[in-house]
Amino acid sequence: MERDLLARACGEAMWRGDHVSKWFGIALDEVRSGYARMSMPVTQNMVNAHNTCHGGAIFTLADATFGYACNSHNQNALASSCTIEFLAPAYLGDRLTAVGEEQVRAGRQGVYDMRVTNQRGETIALFRGKSVTVKGHLVEVR
Amino acid sequence: MERDLLARACGEAMWRGDHVSKWFGIALDEVRSGYARMSMPVTQNMVNAHNTCHGGAIFTLADATFGYACNSHNQNALASSCTIEFLAPAYLGDRLTAVGEEQVRAGRQGVYDMRVTNQRGETIALFRGKSVTVKGHLVEVR
Amino acid sequence: MERDLLARACGEAMWRGDHVSKWFGIALDEVRSGYARMSMPVTQNMVNAHNTCHGGAIFTLADATFGYACNSHNQNALASSCTIEFLAPAYLGDRLTAVGEEQVRAGRQGVYDMRVTNQRGETIALFRGKSVTVKGHLVEVR
Amino acid sequence: MERDLLARACGEAMWRGDHVSKWFGIALDEVRSGYARMSMPVTQNMVNAHNTCHGGAIFTLADATFGYACNSHNQNALASSCTIEFLAPAYLGDRLTAVGEEQVRAGRQGVYDMRVTNQRGETIALFRGKSVTVKGHLVEVR
Repeated sequence: MERDLLARACGEAMWRGDHVSKWFGIALDEVRSGYARMSMPVTQNMVNAHNTCHGGAIFTLADATFGYACNSHNQNALASSCTIEFLAPAYLGDRLTAVGEEQVRAGRQGVYDMRVTNQRGETIALFRGKSVTVKGHLVEVR
Repeated sequence: MERDLLARACGEAMWRGDHVSKWFGIALDEVRSGYARMSMPVTQNMVNAHNTCHGGAIFTLADATFGYACNSHNQNALASSCTIEFLAPAYLGDRLTAVGEEQVRAGRQGVYDMRVTNQRGETIALFRGKSVTVKGHLVEVR
Repeated sequence: MERDLLARACGEAMWRGDHVSKWFGIALDEVRSGYARMSMPVTQNMVNAHNTCHGGAIFTLADATFGYACNSHNQNALASSCTIEFLAPAYLGDRLTAVGEEQVRAGRQGVYDMRVTNQRGETIALFRGKSVTVKGHLVEVR
Repeated sequence: MERDLLARACGEAMWRGDHVSKWFGIALDEVRSGYARMSMPVTQNMVNAHNTCHGGAIFTLADATFGYACNSHNQNALASSCTIEFLAPAYLGDRLTAVGEEQVRAGRQGVYDMRVTNQRGETIALFRGKSVTVKGHLVEVR
């Protein structure tokens, strides 16, 4: 489908400049129109003083997924505000997956929901992000 | 002051197990009762596809600061939910500082506000975190 | 279905003491397990200085719907925190509908998403509520 | 002071069209530049099924206060998103006060924090609102 092809091209363009995801070991598993899926192993670096995965790492996975989903329409978009609910701990060695889906686009605003689960399908966190479009495109379309 | 001494001891205990902050190059600048201040340089790893600092890095700095502030009473506390408003971009080479202050403690819940500024004092993000206390202490008090 | 019957009985028990919904002219359209749907006309009382429906009225509709959805398991539950995104204005004479759906239950916590639309199906607001269960039940089950 | 006089004039202009606050029995106690204070009695209408004040009424008080604070610069502003943390119940007969203070203005965006307390000074809720300015002014300035 045309829109999903465009979304994939946007994802590939973003991925080239995406140092953060590579730094975290995040994989870009799938991009479609208004949708993205990414996954990440919980490594030693991410473990905090309570011996569980730091919220910042979980947030980063979800926020990266948000970025791919909200930029999938080939219109540059930035995160304006984000809310995350931490529902269960993640541990060293877990593999976390974030699935992001568009809820609404209205004018320059968009709302996207990301669900982060572990390898057993348990929900670790729910993330809601609000985006705003800005000037510029990710790929050239002729 | 007694309570601030205890807060510092809690901070030192947390710091020993805090891999994430070290991974990000975050410095623990100050801990007092219900208060923490941390700072972080924006490095190449943190720059995203829009050539600005990834939201996940800004969140991680604020979330770490939240952790030190809400654990400063020597009662283990975990992040329950967090909201972040991104107000201005941060760039490669900036030094970001997060100041976290307790707004309220009510039963097992606490609310903490973190303000992230750059080296020119401009507000980059506002973060509000809700914590919940759990069993256990950070340091032994005789 | 057993669980939906129980949800309806909970909804009826709540409705008897629900002065707010009656005050706002809110109708309880449907309750199922983890789900509720309510609707409300925008009246003269709800119109604010910008000649559009006050956010408080939209919030109240969504929050009421959240209450019915999160209490549908016959375990008393209270709102802990709520986030609302206002996406389009509602006007005098509009009829708003809120649909609330459970996203996750984990221990004593639950997360519910409410979407508020107008009579043309346009999304007016998205509301996310976090609930926590407390002692007590809504109906007696033998 | 000039800016506070302008804020008061804006508040008076808003008040004339503010049906919601009057409907709720909300009083406009003070408006200054970037600041507002309002109060409200908890009446029978506001009591919900748990025999405590409905979240919608607490939200409405805080949201109204947000509206006066973010419009105090004589530049029309609308609520974009709001987060409320419910920290303690309010009861029939309580008198609630919301104090709203500007945290930051950056371009068209603003962030305002409202604290809702009861007559004993206990914090009932914390509300954070994000505003966006739109065209138009509240009062004519020559």
